[in-house]
Amino acid sequence: MKIDGVPTRSVWLDEDGWAVRIIDQTRLPWSLDTPRLVDRDEVATAIRTMQVRGAPLIGAVAAYGLALAVREDPSSEAMERDAALLLATRPTAVNLGWALDRMLTRLRNTRPEQRAAVAYAEAGAIADEDVAQNEAIGRHGAELIAEAAQRAPGRAVNVLTHCNAGWLATVDWGTALAPIYRAHDSGVPVHVWVDETRPRNQGAALTAYELGKHGVAHTVVSDNAGGHLMQHGRVDLVIVGTDRVTRTGDVANKIGTYLKALAAHDNGVPFWVALPSTTIDWAVSDGVAEIPIEERPADEVTTVTGRAAGGEVVRVQVTPDGSAAANPAFDVTPARLVGGLITERGRCAANAEGLAGLFPERA
Amino acid sequence: MKIDGVPTRSVWLDEDGWAVRIIDQTRLPWSLDTPRLVDRDEVATAIRTMQVRGAPLIGAVAAYGLALAVREDPSSEAMERDAALLLATRPTAVNLGWALDRMLTRLRNTRPEQRAAVAYAEAGAIADEDVAQNEAIGRHGAELIAEAAQRAPGRAVNVLTHCNAGWLATVDWGTALAPIYRAHDSGVPVHVWVDETRPRNQGAALTAYELGKHGVAHTVVSDNAGGHLMQHGRVDLVIVGTDRVTRTGDVANKIGTYLKALAAHDNGVPFWVALPSTTIDWAVSDGVAEIPIEERPADEVTTVTGRAAGGEVVRVQVTPDGSAAANPAFDVTPARLVGGLITERGRCAANAEGLAGLFPERA
Repeated sequence: MKIDGVPTRSVWLDEDGWAVRIIDQTRLPWSLDTPRLVDRDEVATAIRTMQVRGAPLIGAVAAYGLALAVREDPSSEAMERDAALLLATRPTAVNLGWALDRMLTRLRNTRPEQRAAVAYAEAGAIADEDVAQNEAIGRHGAELIAEAAQRAPGRAVNVLTHCNAGWLATVDWGTALAPIYRAHDSGVPVHVWVDETRPRNQGAALTAYELGKHGVAHTVVSDNAGGHLMQHGRVDLVIVGTDRVTRTGDVANKIGTYLKALAAHDNGVPFWVALPSTTIDWAVSDGVAEIPIEERPADEVTTVTGRAAGGEVVRVQVTPDGSAAANPAFDVTPARLVGGLITERGRCAANAEGLAGLFPERA
Repeated sequence: MKIDGVPTRSVWLDEDGWAVRIIDQTRLPWSLDTPRLVDRDEVATAIRTMQVRGAPLIGAVAAYGLALAVREDPSSEAMERDAALLLATRPTAVNLGWALDRMLTRLRNTRPEQRAAVAYAEAGAIADEDVAQNEAIGRHGAELIAEAAQRAPGRAVNVLTHCNAGWLATVDWGTALAPIYRAHDSGVPVHVWVDETRPRNQGAALTAYELGKHGVAHTVVSDNAGGHLMQHGRVDLVIVGTDRVTRTGDVANKIGTYLKALAAHDNGVPFWVALPSTTIDWAVSDGVAEIPIEERPADEVTTVTGRAAGGEVVRVQVTPDGSAAANPAFDVTPARLVGGLITERGRCAANAEGLAGLFPERA
């Protein structure tokens, strides 16, 4: 997608053709820093410190990290060790393991002296396939926005989203935001309600940044506001991303998604979840009971980072000294509250039959 | 309630017996400033700038403001003018008009030379009656916590609350927090999940402060977390306050309350609303359609105030330059989602029959 008119991806090769460039997302929206990563350790640090985040993106960046590693030492021993090191950077991201497995499968069958070239080609393919999948999600989801536009002539379609499932979370397009970009680029008037998404504020910091830089109309609201907006007819549809979908259509996503699904259900607002099929966990049937929920550090709740009047980015404490805080990072929305799923193969109902219909080879 | 062991109200007369002392709530939880207010204008400013907030409290403070005014000029002309000026400080608070009406009704029938003494007595009565009402709410609500404790032997009862409906929002005890203080003081183990309550953070700043200073166990969570906690059996009951209840039991309260009510309903968690009967609007039947929702300044969403590492309290921007924000301050929870109401006369169902049973003279 575009930043001030310039098409941009969230990871790319530098002009020399081998170093990796990323956007440091911990600095957004305050400054657009694009650090150059030249070895395995720099890539591992970038993932661990969340300079890059979003399951699809960290998969692609890890793949490039392994390419950098085999460029330095293509021996099998080093390659296996470096892949394990990259895998250990984040504990829960599905795509990290998937991308490294794919790289290793390809590289184990390649002679060491050819591994660097093959690794770069495979990492590039992973990145390009992510873009293609998300572009397809955008196409299938944009139909929903176009249909909503026909029901609301003369005004923009209002889409509410939670957290950041945009191009910054993937290589390009995003998942939940792909339909919005597609609709916007094709001239369908669309306006996005952006949930702030405490405690890490991915909505306020990343989604608002993305949409603003691409020129998509949007309004940031507190996470508390969505139900009220839906009660008063100000939301036409909800689209969110997901970190894991069960074979039965339960949806794990950023904490607070479940509350928006309840409000959508209570007000007859369509609630859609956008995902590449790699996010489906075919082994899990009961999301609430079976999906482990990461408990993140309390200081994400007790503090907020922002820009002070002088321009410096500072972290401020918002709770009294001595007050404890809890920080569950995800929740699970039961399939009964999910209106439907948007995948790269099209849309389906959020249940076993719907998913089996689109992905018969897996069901 | 207590601050570090010292019983404290949110408004009181200074040692000289005529000046008014308040807690500057805009400075909490960072410092306990108790400014001395000596005339009408200082009281009006304290209400307007939200140094005092919470409908019951600003009613009591405004009553004392009129006492200060008639102490200086007891003429009828001045008294009516000063009351009108105090009334204009906040647009929506129900108790502000109620308290000033009550003061004027009493003072109009009093000779000017006696008005100061009568005004102080009446303001004191308003404050004391608020305390008594809230103490009664606490008694009726604490029974619910005690019953929950019997169903959960060996652990604390987990109560979730939203925003601040504690003693800082009233003269003492609070509404939603009164049952919690009563249970705690009587030895029932209770733990409170405190919703942060963006955008103004009344939960993180005021409720956590109150509970901590009184010694009540509590944990601050983002507004997004409550649904997940309820799904996993970690909330025994929800108690919130309210700004207006319709005769049919619809509940207007701080934005986000509706989302918690939906989650409570979805998980079979009892959802209670605590209120003095002065909060009931007997003229309104459909809360969602009829209760006007205040839209507050966008900068409450785009910024957060907290304490920086150096100890100074600063305001930081959390959204990108150029991103719009919307800030509806309240939402309406339909009566069908409200488990029941806790009033000074006891508990009732959230419907016309329930309220008429407790308040037959008004129904």
